[in-house]
Amino acid sequence: MFLLHPQIEPWLVRGATGCTLSLLVERSEGLEVLLRCEPDNEAQLIPMRYTGRVGQLHRFEAELPWDGGNDPTVYCFLVIERGRQRWLAGDGQHPRIPHRDQMFRINRADTPPTWVRDQVFYQIFPDRFCQGDPSLAVKGGEYRQGMRQRSVIAKRWGELPEAAQGGIEFYGGDLVGVQRQIDYLERELGITALYLNPVFTAGSNHKYDTEDYYHVDPHLGGNDALAALSAALRERGMRLLLDAVVNHTGTDHPWFNLHGTHDTLGAAQSPHSPWRRWYAFDDAGQYQGWKGHLHLPVLDYRAPGLRERVYAGPNAILRHWMRAPYRIDGWRFDVIHMLGEGSGSTNNAHYVREFRRAMREENPQSYVMGEHFSEATRWLQGDQEDGAMNYYGFAHPLREWLAGVDIAYLPAKLDTRDFSAWLDAARGRIPYDNQLAQFNLLDSHDTARFFTLVGADAAKMKLAVTLLFAYPGAPCIYYGDEIGLEGGQDPDCRRCFDWDRSHWYAELFEHYRASIALRRSRAEWRHGGYQALLADGDVFAFARFTTTAASVVVLNRGTRVTVRIPVWQIPVAVKAWRATGTEALAVEPGWVTIDAAPGTGVVLLGD
Amino acid sequence: MFLLHPQIEPWLVRGATGCTLSLLVERSEGLEVLLRCEPDNEAQLIPMRYTGRVGQLHRFEAELPWDGGNDPTVYCFLVIERGRQRWLAGDGQHPRIPHRDQMFRINRADTPPTWVRDQVFYQIFPDRFCQGDPSLAVKGGEYRQGMRQRSVIAKRWGELPEAAQGGIEFYGGDLVGVQRQIDYLERELGITALYLNPVFTAGSNHKYDTEDYYHVDPHLGGNDALAALSAALRERGMRLLLDAVVNHTGTDHPWFNLHGTHDTLGAAQSPHSPWRRWYAFDDAGQYQGWKGHLHLPVLDYRAPGLRERVYAGPNAILRHWMRAPYRIDGWRFDVIHMLGEGSGSTNNAHYVREFRRAMREENPQSYVMGEHFSEATRWLQGDQEDGAMNYYGFAHPLREWLAGVDIAYLPAKLDTRDFSAWLDAARGRIPYDNQLAQFNLLDSHDTARFFTLVGADAAKMKLAVTLLFAYPGAPCIYYGDEIGLEGGQDPDCRRCFDWDRSHWYAELFEHYRASIALRRSRAEWRHGGYQALLADGDVFAFARFTTTAASVVVLNRGTRVTVRIPVWQIPVAVKAWRATGTEALAVEPGWVTIDAAPGTGVVLLGD
Repeated sequence: MFLLHPQIEPWLVRGATGCTLSLLVERSEGLEVLLRCEPDNEAQLIPMRYTGRVGQLHRFEAELPWDGGNDPTVYCFLVIERGRQRWLAGDGQHPRIPHRDQMFRINRADTPPTWVRDQVFYQIFPDRFCQGDPSLAVKGGEYRQGMRQRSVIAKRWGELPEAAQGGIEFYGGDLVGVQRQIDYLERELGITALYLNPVFTAGSNHKYDTEDYYHVDPHLGGNDALAALSAALRERGMRLLLDAVVNHTGTDHPWFNLHGTHDTLGAAQSPHSPWRRWYAFDDAGQYQGWKGHLHLPVLDYRAPGLRERVYAGPNAILRHWMRAPYRIDGWRFDVIHMLGEGSGSTNNAHYVREFRRAMREENPQSYVMGEHFSEATRWLQGDQEDGAMNYYGFAHPLREWLAGVDIAYLPAKLDTRDFSAWLDAARGRIPYDNQLAQFNLLDSHDTARFFTLVGADAAKMKLAVTLLFAYPGAPCIYYGDEIGLEGGQDPDCRRCFDWDRSHWYAELFEHYRASIALRRSRAEWRHGGYQALLADGDVFAFARFTTTAASVVVLNRGTRVTVRIPVWQIPVAVKAWRATGTEALAVEPGWVTIDAAPGTGVVLLGD
Repeated sequence: MFLLHPQIEPWLVRGATGCTLSLLVERSEGLEVLLRCEPDNEAQLIPMRYTGRVGQLHRFEAELPWDGGNDPTVYCFLVIERGRQRWLAGDGQHPRIPHRDQMFRINRADTPPTWVRDQVFYQIFPDRFCQGDPSLAVKGGEYRQGMRQRSVIAKRWGELPEAAQGGIEFYGGDLVGVQRQIDYLERELGITALYLNPVFTAGSNHKYDTEDYYHVDPHLGGNDALAALSAALRERGMRLLLDAVVNHTGTDHPWFNLHGTHDTLGAAQSPHSPWRRWYAFDDAGQYQGWKGHLHLPVLDYRAPGLRERVYAGPNAILRHWMRAPYRIDGWRFDVIHMLGEGSGSTNNAHYVREFRRAMREENPQSYVMGEHFSEATRWLQGDQEDGAMNYYGFAHPLREWLAGVDIAYLPAKLDTRDFSAWLDAARGRIPYDNQLAQFNLLDSHDTARFFTLVGADAAKMKLAVTLLFAYPGAPCIYYGDEIGLEGGQDPDCRRCFDWDRSHWYAELFEHYRASIALRRSRAEWRHGGYQALLADGDVFAFARFTTTAASVVVLNRGTRVTVRIPVWQIPVAVKAWRATGTEALAVEPGWVTIDAAPGTGVVLLGD
C-alpha cells in the first residue's frame, strides 16, 4: 500500500503548539491510521482523521505536538489493515515500528536559512580558476614552503598538476580573476552563490595551512580583492561562502612558530608560549598533526584564548569576515567533525553549536555548512549545521550507482533499488528543512572529478547533473565540471579552468545551463517534496512537487527500456505532462509511459 | 555470503589502545576484507589479515583503535568480492555502507557490571506475592487515599483486582512474605535476584506515588523488613533491585503537601515553599502531573535542592539504600526517559549520567536499569544505563510474533523474518556488553500477562519462555508467570500469587524450572555470542556459543515442519548434538535436521 507524507506545506504546517500533518494513503477503507510521536520520550499514538481525497490519494490528518524535551520532534505513521501494521518513517515503509533514528523529524527552533535552497553554488579553488592580475602571482622560488622548506614553483596555466609537487606549485589564479568572471558565472551559467576554497594567507596553493586568519593571501589579491569581490557579488544578489579551517593551522602560523623572545615565542618554540595550550602537545612535548600530518598542527579547544579568537571574542575570526566590508553569507567548515578538545574530537558537538551561535549572532540568516566525507547525520539535526557537503547522502551513492566505485575508490556495484533506498535513508535521518539546505555535489577539490570517474562518458555525466539539480538540497558545481574538465584524485582534480571555449564539451555545458535554468524556474526542484517512484533494473525515477506543480525525473543508466511511471502517487493535479529527453510519451489516468533511450535522463514537467 | 562477528572473546579482545577483532567469513578466496571505523569521526579503513580456518569458516583479523573522541567506538566490516560490496554491521548485512546507528559499538570506559548477565531475576509486586505478617496489612477504611480521598479497601487474597478500585485495594502482601518465599524462589525455581516494585511509603497499592523516600511502607514491614530481606538474600548470594520513582512524587509527599507554617509549607500550599521549585509549576501556579495525572506531580531537576536530595548529596535517596543495612545492588528507574528540567525531559541524559555517577560512587558494581516502553537505544550507549526493561528489543517483537498484538495492544501480525531482523536491529544498536545486561521480560505489572495474550496457550508460552532464557540479556520472571497466573491489562495483571499448587500449570512450571536450570548450566546462554540461523515461515532458529560450547534454539510457531539448520555457521567444533524437545535428529557435516512438532521449541545442546 502506497503511503506518502510530503514534508512541505500544506501537508506539514507549523504552528505554535505543534504541526498539522497529513498522511496520504492509496485507499481509506478498513484502515486504522495513527500518528506516533514521543513527547518527552514517551510514546504517544494519535488517531488521524480522514479529510478527503487528494487526486487518487486519501488524506488523513492529525496534530503533532512539539516535543518540549527534545528538538527535533520525531514522528512516524502507522496504518493497520486486517491486523497487519505498516509504518511510514523518514526513510520509507516498514513492517514493524521504525527505530528512532529512522523517524521523520522537524525542528521547532533551529532551522536553516531559507535562501540556501534557492541557490546554485559554484566552488572555486582560487589558484586554478582565473588569473586577474598577473602581478600578484607567486613567482618561482619566491619563498620556501612547508616542513621540508621546498622552494615554490610557478607553473604555466593549463599545465597538469603533479602529485610530487603537492602544495608548492602555483598557477596564478586570484580573486581579481574570480571577480572578472562573475558575468560568466551569473549571466551565462546561472550561478547565484560562490564557495571559495581557503583564501587566507598560507604558503601552500591550497591554503589549508593557515598562517594568518585576518588577511587574504596577497597572491590572491589581499583583503581588498575579497572586499571588492564581495561587493560585486552583493550587487547582483549573489552569495559568498568562505572556507573556515579552524581544526588546525599551518606550522607557519605565528601562534605555532614565532621566534621572538619570552612571551613572543610560538607554541613550538617554548612550553611557556602564550599559545602553547592552543595546540595539542602531549606530555613528551610532541604536538599532534591533523591525521598525523605534522605540517598541520591540531588546535585544542580546551584553551580559552583559542575559543575567544576563533568564535567567542568580539573580533573572533568567524565574526570578522561576516562583517563589512566582507559580509560573507556563511562558512564552510573544514573537517569540522574532527575538531574538539585535546588532539581529538572530544566535545565536538559543543563547539559546533558555539560556532553556530556566534555566526547567528552576527547574521541570523547565515549558513553553517560542514565538510563531512562520511555520514553527517549527527551534525544535521538542527542545532549544529544547516547543511553539509553532501558526500554521504548524495555524491557517494551516485558514484556507486553510475561509476561503480565508492568514496574511497573501492569497487562498488550498486543496485538501483539500493541506490534509491540509500538516498531515502540519508534524507530521512535529518529534518527536511536541513535536507533542503544540504550542499549537494558530484565532486570537489578532494575527489576525482565525476566526469573522469565515469570515463568521460557524457551521457552518464548528464544523468548525474540532472540528479544534482533536481534533488532536494542546494546544488554546487565544482569549477570546470560544466565544461567537462577532467581530473583524477588530488591534485589532478585541481587543474586550471580552461578558458578556451573550443575545448569545452559543448553538449555538457548546455546540459548544465539547461539544468540550472530548470532548477531556477521550477519551485518544486528547489523546495518541493520528494517521492521515489521507481527503482528497478537500471531505471530510477522520482517526483518533486509542490501543490501546484510537479516534475518527474527518470534516469536510465542501462539499455533502452519502456518505463511506466505511477504519477498517481504525486498529490498534485497535473493538467499536462511535457517531456524533455524523449519523444515517446503516453499518458493514461495516473500513469505516464515513456521510452527511455540507453543511458539517458528524461524530465517530465507537469503543470 | 555468510559473515559473522561474534562480539565476545576471542573474536573481540579488549586492549589498551583498542580491540583485536575477528570477522568470520564463509570463504576466503578473491576477497578484499576491511575493518571500517571512525576515530574522531573520520573514516578509516583497515585491511584485515587472513589468519586461518575456524571450523568451516575463515578468519580475518585487525586491530580496532579506540576512538579518542567518542565512547562507544563504532565499527563495521566490508568484504568486496568481484566488485560488489557486502557490509556487516551490528544489525546484520547490507549491500551498502551502514548508517552509524547500525554499526557495531563497544565502550572503552563505561561497561555494565558483569554479574548482571548471570542472574535470573524475579519481579515482585509486594502487595500481591505473599503475606508474611497479617498484622501489617492495610485494613479496610484505615485511611483515605489520593486526590479523591477514597477510603482504602482490604480484599481477600485471590479476589480479582478491579479497575474501578485503581490503587486503593489491598491484599496484604508484604516483604516478610517475600522473605518467607526465598526458598521457593531460589531452591525450587532457581532465581538469583529480585526486583521489587516500589516499597517506600505511599498511599496506593502500587506505591508509585511516593510519600517518603526514606521509609519502607509500614504495611510492607517497614525498613526492618527490607533490611532483613536484604540480609537473607545476601546470605544466599542473591541480588536485590528496588524501584526508583524520582520523576514525580505523590501529592501526599510533604515536599508537595505540607500544612505547616511559613517555611514549612508544601509546594502546593505556597509559592514561597522551600520545595516550590522542586516541582514544575507554571506561571499560572498550576503544577504538572505525570502524563497529566495530577496525583503524580512532576519533579523539576532545575532545583539544586532536589538534585542534592535525589542523587548528589551525602545522604541522597539513591545513595541511602545502597548502603548498609539495605545494600541494594541497583535501581530500576521508573519512566526515566521523561525526567528532566521544567515539566519535561529537557537535559534528560545529563541527569541519567549523574544518577549513574552517584550509584557507581556508592558501588562500582551497581546496576543502573531504566524503564522504557519504547526504544531505549539512546540510554544504552554505555554512559547512561547498563540495561533497560527490554520491551522494545524483546517483549514487543515477541508479543507481535506470538500473540499478534503490539505493545499498545494494537493488532500486529509479524513475519518471522521481520521478527528476527527486529531482534538483530535492536541488539545491534547497543554495545554487546549492554545487551548482556538487558533486563529481558515477557510482561510486567504494566502489561497484560503474556500467557493471557496468547490465550493461555501453554505451547506458545513455552516458546516465549525458551527464548527468554536463551536470549542475550538477563531474564526476568514476573511473579506468577511460572505457574500460569493469568491477567489482562493493569490492574488485572497484578493478581495475587496463587500458593495452592493444585492450581498451577505443572507443565509450564516444569518448563520454567528446566529453562532456568539450562540457563544456569550453559555459559553460552549467559554470555555467549548470538547468531540467527533461520527465519523462515513460522520457524525461527538461533545459536548461542562460546569457544567451547554451543546451543541452537529452534522455535516453531506453526505446523509440523522439518528444519535443516546450518550449524556450520557456528564457529565452535561441536562433537555431539543432543536435542530436547524432539526425537528426530539427523546430523550431517555442518547441518542438523530436526522434526519440529507444531508449536514447539527444540533446544540442541552441542559440546
